[in-house]
Amino acid sequence: MTVGEIAELLHGRVIGNTQATIRGLAKIEEAGPEDLTFVANPKYAKYLEESHAGVVLISPALIPSDRTVIVVDDPYLCFVRLLEIFYPAVREVEIGVHASAVVDATAVLGEQVAIGAHCVIESGARVGAGSVLFPHTFVGCDAVIGEACTIHSHVSLRRGVRLGNRVVIQNGAVIGSDGFGFAAEMDKFRKIPQVGIVVIEDDVEIGANTTIDRATIGQTLIRSGTKIDNLCQIAHNVTIGRHCVIAAQTGIAGSTSIGDHCQLGGQVGMVGHLKIGDGVMFGAQSGVSNNVASGSIVSGSPSRPIAMWRRIEASLNRLPDLLKRVREIEKQLDNQSARVDEKKP
Amino acid sequence: MTVGEIAELLHGRVIGNTQATIRGLAKIEEAGPEDLTFVANPKYAKYLEESHAGVVLISPALIPSDRTVIVVDDPYLCFVRLLEIFYPAVREVEIGVHASAVVDATAVLGEQVAIGAHCVIESGARVGAGSVLFPHTFVGCDAVIGEACTIHSHVSLRRGVRLGNRVVIQNGAVIGSDGFGFAAEMDKFRKIPQVGIVVIEDDVEIGANTTIDRATIGQTLIRSGTKIDNLCQIAHNVTIGRHCVIAAQTGIAGSTSIGDHCQLGGQVGMVGHLKIGDGVMFGAQSGVSNNVASGSIVSGSPSRPIAMWRRIEASLNRLPDLLKRVREIEKQLDNQSARVDEKKP
Amino acid sequence: MTVGEIAELLHGRVIGNTQATIRGLAKIEEAGPEDLTFVANPKYAKYLEESHAGVVLISPALIPSDRTVIVVDDPYLCFVRLLEIFYPAVREVEIGVHASAVVDATAVLGEQVAIGAHCVIESGARVGAGSVLFPHTFVGCDAVIGEACTIHSHVSLRRGVRLGNRVVIQNGAVIGSDGFGFAAEMDKFRKIPQVGIVVIEDDVEIGANTTIDRATIGQTLIRSGTKIDNLCQIAHNVTIGRHCVIAAQTGIAGSTSIGDHCQLGGQVGMVGHLKIGDGVMFGAQSGVSNNVASGSIVSGSPSRPIAMWRRIEASLNRLPDLLKRVREIEKQLDNQSARVDEKKP
Repeated sequence: MTVGEIAELLHGRVIGNTQATIRGLAKIEEAGPEDLTFVANPKYAKYLEESHAGVVLISPALIPSDRTVIVVDDPYLCFVRLLEIFYPAVREVEIGVHASAVVDATAVLGEQVAIGAHCVIESGARVGAGSVLFPHTFVGCDAVIGEACTIHSHVSLRRGVRLGNRVVIQNGAVIGSDGFGFAAEMDKFRKIPQVGIVVIEDDVEIGANTTIDRATIGQTLIRSGTKIDNLCQIAHNVTIGRHCVIAAQTGIAGSTSIGDHCQLGGQVGMVGHLKIGDGVMFGAQSGVSNNVASGSIVSGSPSRPIAMWRRIEASLNRLPDLLKRVREIEKQLDNQSARVDEKKP
Repeated sequence: MTVGEIAELLHGRVIGNTQATIRGLAKIEEAGPEDLTFVANPKYAKYLEESHAGVVLISPALIPSDRTVIVVDDPYLCFVRLLEIFYPAVREVEIGVHASAVVDATAVLGEQVAIGAHCVIESGARVGAGSVLFPHTFVGCDAVIGEACTIHSHVSLRRGVRLGNRVVIQNGAVIGSDGFGFAAEMDKFRKIPQVGIVVIEDDVEIGANTTIDRATIGQTLIRSGTKIDNLCQIAHNVTIGRHCVIAAQTGIAGSTSIGDHCQLGGQVGMVGHLKIGDGVMFGAQSGVSNNVASGSIVSGSPSRPIAMWRRIEASLNRLPDLLKRVREIEKQLDNQSARVDEKKP
Repeated sequence: MTVGEIAELLHGRVIGNTQATIRGLAKIEEAGPEDLTFVANPKYAKYLEESHAGVVLISPALIPSDRTVIVVDDPYLCFVRLLEIFYPAVREVEIGVHASAVVDATAVLGEQVAIGAHCVIESGARVGAGSVLFPHTFVGCDAVIGEACTIHSHVSLRRGVRLGNRVVIQNGAVIGSDGFGFAAEMDKFRKIPQVGIVVIEDDVEIGANTTIDRATIGQTLIRSGTKIDNLCQIAHNVTIGRHCVIAAQTGIAGSTSIGDHCQLGGQVGMVGHLKIGDGVMFGAQSGVSNNVASGSIVSGSPSRPIAMWRRIEASLNRLPDLLKRVREIEKQLDNQSARVDEKKP
């Protein structure tokens, strides 16, 4: 495509050579003369001068003087749209049921489903129209997968689990494992039956090898639009609201409830039975053991409001020195009293 | 069942309507007029008034005046027993060997085993009577599974691993992966053969996607009754005692030995070669790099006795202010000496 | 073998009985009279007296007076070589393609490959000579596996992923899952197509259930000789240099670049877009949010140079007491000013 054609597609304005040919997309550091790239963050504007990119998507505020650009309002979103166009989704699993898949006679498959090699779909399970199951997917009894879902290889969806539409589950994730519930009985532990389910609403994405436990009773719930990264642990009876973003290796203990539009950094840990409001942001590695009100920003372990946490962190660098200073003060005061004592008759 | 029938089953005493019909079990917040619920923790007694539950299991100490209750000594354990009765375990894998499973001719299967679709059982492996292997289980050469075990889908049990009886392994767990051992040789690393095994004793439960490495030589050992949650890492040659509880995402490095009846919160990390006594409790996100004596309670990273850790945490909130106060003191003392100097002739 | 034969093999010098028979290798605490063991670390020399080992590999500096030893320059490396000899690698997967494996007609298999039961190899994929795929391996379209690789059960190698030679991947690892990239669009998130790949160079080892995301564009890169433990998360567009060692449950966020010969303790977290130099060492549970220069040793969360971190940690134990001391000083100064005020006319 030419720069001019791309600009038309994006309703953008070209400054420079509209006839230049573009064959690929690349990050600004790696882009060559036939690549398009973008600068959305003023922080990366410094790369503009050195970049070999053929053309740069750029916002009106950042126009440089000396190279071909396409000026658009949101260069990042435009770049995402071009990614979708330049790299259209490839069909990796053929429509139909692979001969090696084991599908129970009572399972119900929608139109145009693609069931890969060695998948297992148990009795009473349902797969909605257009959904794709990569090889080695396990779908337990009575589990329900909505329409247009993508389930990658080695995923386990256990008995009774329910997925909405357009849900994406990365490889090896486990949905519906038993909650970690044991009752102390004498000096042993007795397993508490975990008879609830997991409900995952529309447009959720779950990362690779993430685990989401079924509820003891009732349901573990991930509401629509939420994105969960790799290797996260969501315990039994947790509720996560709409359009949250949860980074990798985060763990949320049993029965905690998180509001809408929350963002959790990587390796965050939350104890059980908490209530987290809407729009809360958690720094990476936060350790959360108290309820958090809507709109808060917290960090640290144990977590604190971010301003407080920053003040403490900055103070810590001065703590070893502070010990010395206080010792010095004490000496000085001791000397004073000694002098006072001397003066006494 | 009626309230009266349930009370008889639990050897409990009804106060209120013995004829009320109960159709399900629920958490106190969600229970309706035909549900039974329980209150074991005085903390949750506040929910009693608002609950719509048909009947509440309750301890003698918590009897409320105005609703139908069944008074029992341990409401929680009674509730667990009712869960078992109301939701009896469902057979999800049929007895026998699924046609698509690949079982080596030298493997030995006990009576009434259930081997799911696409399982692979290698040469010399043994599966004890009554054990259930969900689809996609891999059982390596010479691995031994005891009686009445439940192995969920996508579990890997590698060569020579040994499980006792009534062991439960959640989906995707890996038992017997190579220990992480490399010897520095020049500026490279040479893999140290990991020729030991993993031994898991009776009544252990292992969480989803948890990994337990085989020993370099000898064995990695999980003793009877211990419960390990999802996404934990147990390194080579670790020993974990009896009836421990280890919450999710905890990692224990090589050759560390943990006593009986220990409890580890989520995301705990322990370095290698430690000796941890019996009955030790670790707060979530603890970082443990020293031996810990029996009966201790520790928290923090690096971990400290809990009383010390709490004092430090409380003090930290006052640290930024402390810096100011010390600066103030120093000024005051400077002024004093200045005044003293002035007075000098 | 006799002690004399082993000494000859290792070019070592026997002190004691060269005719003693050795049947196995063991750790020093567990070795019996027919076992060989080793002491490499002076810290473990204390076990020498009590050990029942038939013979001990030992360095010239540590020779004890009263037992049979083989004196060698590097007892640890010699022990590793004996492990390789006493426990030669066993072939667990037969050469050839198992009848239950599903291999696309366009896939290319090298000589002497071993493809286990229920493996799935998609179109255009290639497996190099001598590589072993354990059961349930998934190899996506156009993925490339080099020569002499070992891929354990339940591994997913997604579309376009490239492995070098002699790569070892432990069970359940996921290579090439989608990077965690979403663009905010109104109050929702739109998935950014992840069209890049993962490149893993020669002699890398990847731990069980570790996840390595494909690049958004370009590649996520693990350079030769690097070893990554279990349950680690490597995000999109990360680069890890040569001969690094990364312990379990560590997470590295998007686009961060790590140099050669770095060592990361367990449960380390790094934010995205960092530049880490060569030869950097990170303490366990470090939280890294800034670039780190070559040769640094850092620890803590947030991470600091290790000397600084140790001083702060030591100071923290004295912080609660420091608060009291400062209060005491303030009182004393208040009393002084009170006295001064009294004296004033």
